[in-house]
Amino acid sequence: MKLTVEKESELHASFATQGLLRTLGAVLSEATQGRCVIEVPFSDAVTQHNGFFHGGVVGALADTAGGYAALTVLPLGADVLTLEYKVNFIRPAAGTRILAIADVLRAGKTVIVTRVDVYVVKDGEQKLCAAMQQSVMRAPGEKKQAGGE
Amino acid sequence: MKLTVEKESELHASFATQGLLRTLGAVLSEATQGRCVIEVPFSDAVTQHNGFFHGGVVGALADTAGGYAALTVLPLGADVLTLEYKVNFIRPAAGTRILAIADVLRAGKTVIVTRVDVYVVKDGEQKLCAAMQQSVMRAPGEKKQAGGE
Amino acid sequence: MKLTVEKESELHASFATQGLLRTLGAVLSEATQGRCVIEVPFSDAVTQHNGFFHGGVVGALADTAGGYAALTVLPLGADVLTLEYKVNFIRPAAGTRILAIADVLRAGKTVIVTRVDVYVVKDGEQKLCAAMQQSVMRAPGEKKQAGGE
Amino acid sequence: MKLTVEKESELHASFATQGLLRTLGAVLSEATQGRCVIEVPFSDAVTQHNGFFHGGVVGALADTAGGYAALTVLPLGADVLTLEYKVNFIRPAAGTRILAIADVLRAGKTVIVTRVDVYVVKDGEQKLCAAMQQSVMRAPGEKKQAGGE
Repeated sequence: MKLTVEKESELHASFATQGLLRTLGAVLSEATQGRCVIEVPFSDAVTQHNGFFHGGVVGALADTAGGYAALTVLPLGADVLTLEYKVNFIRPAAGTRILAIADVLRAGKTVIVTRVDVYVVKDGEQKLCAAMQQSVMRAPGEKKQAGGE
Repeated sequence: MKLTVEKESELHASFATQGLLRTLGAVLSEATQGRCVIEVPFSDAVTQHNGFFHGGVVGALADTAGGYAALTVLPLGADVLTLEYKVNFIRPAAGTRILAIADVLRAGKTVIVTRVDVYVVKDGEQKLCAAMQQSVMRAPGEKKQAGGE
Repeated sequence: MKLTVEKESELHASFATQGLLRTLGAVLSEATQGRCVIEVPFSDAVTQHNGFFHGGVVGALADTAGGYAALTVLPLGADVLTLEYKVNFIRPAAGTRILAIADVLRAGKTVIVTRVDVYVVKDGEQKLCAAMQQSVMRAPGEKKQAGGE
Repeated sequence: MKLTVEKESELHASFATQGLLRTLGAVLSEATQGRCVIEVPFSDAVTQHNGFFHGGVVGALADTAGGYAALTVLPLGADVLTLEYKVNFIRPAAGTRILAIADVLRAGKTVIVTRVDVYVVKDGEQKLCAAMQQSVMRAPGEKKQAGGE
């Protein structure tokens, strides 16, 4: 289901304020009710010692995608904090691009649970490289505070 | 217990090859048998939308510290791949510096389990901001492959 | 894909040796290539303080289903040890039956990653009550050792 | 710090209502401010296929210990729901007894984070066999509801 124009522009505006996402070159490529897709292109800024995408980048991308997926099911002006996430690495993230597809599993009043699949794209083929589960909490103060209580 | 000079310089050389660690400004500040400490200074490159350290940076730092702690208990030339990690965020990472202290809980022949505490430093005070558990696998090909099997 | 008769009877024989599964009344209701379904009926032996299925039972069921799913992709005689699992509880497990559906996400040579959905059945309706991610390791000694290295 | 007599008897009364804990033979052996210790003796009711403690029992014990540790920092009459937990298995739980030591890492207004170490006791020696991290949520309705929102 499509988001309202106001919600969509709010998500893009929030995205633009995150220094890390600029650093990684992350792009918010899809946001619909309960789903969010974010991509990161390969660059020297994101590598580990074998020249692949760093696991930390994969984790950060998945965390971000889950957080924005949660925002899509909340009213305008709402904010979220990540409580925790767990990521299993499935195969080396060797490719030209990684993309995280995040889905809301359950939207509680306080806590939202998401599941995120991260794919690596190489030679036009897209393969699962990491699987994540996350919980985020709706921020009490709305847009004032983040990352804890 | 102190590492050998060869092991220590191997760890620093490996650290220097990781593009993401340069991007974050990460510093390997301690490595002894079974323990590793890594720090990241605050900068605009690592922020989320409230201007604090991004959770993804906290996760990446913890993942990296755990991986290097695992390397301290392996012979020269060994390499590791992260299998999975799980991080709980305890409080907002608002400060001038974050540091991750990683300890090896169990060094198996194939799989090594670590626990990592991440602290945020503000006004000279150091507070726990995240807690992580991780498993890494010794790479089969030694220094040839990473991030999966 | 169907399993061989030998593999299927091996899984059922292994299942029957686990005291906890008898205690819980667990039933192995489906095992095909890469997938396993296990069920537990409601009883006084599995409750928490509100009279629902205990979260520990939900976790144990999911862990078991993931382990057997991993066995379906391994040769006859192989054994696995759980390395770790992480479970998010989605809603109260209030019902007459819970069932765990486990799928193999990735079968490496040493480590197998699974994802498990646990459903609670009430008044003929089946609802997601927990989501799990797990890694198991192929046991080195085959059928001799379990739970570590 | 010692708990009040009322709090302590409330915890023991709650413990007694959980069918699974009776099934496992679990004993609440210590509860102080921010800490809880629970033990389970070996029996045929808790085994996996090699005759050791089942991983699901280890997980259930750790989950329970974390939940009661959280209750020790909450006012009389409060209730908690487990949001999620993640357990790494360190070595086979082969012994006569397992005990879980749970500590509160952070007590937020809504979410409480705990860390739990599970030990196996054999021939008088106590060894770490599992490490867990958990988050629980304070139940909104206090003693009316559990396991979700």
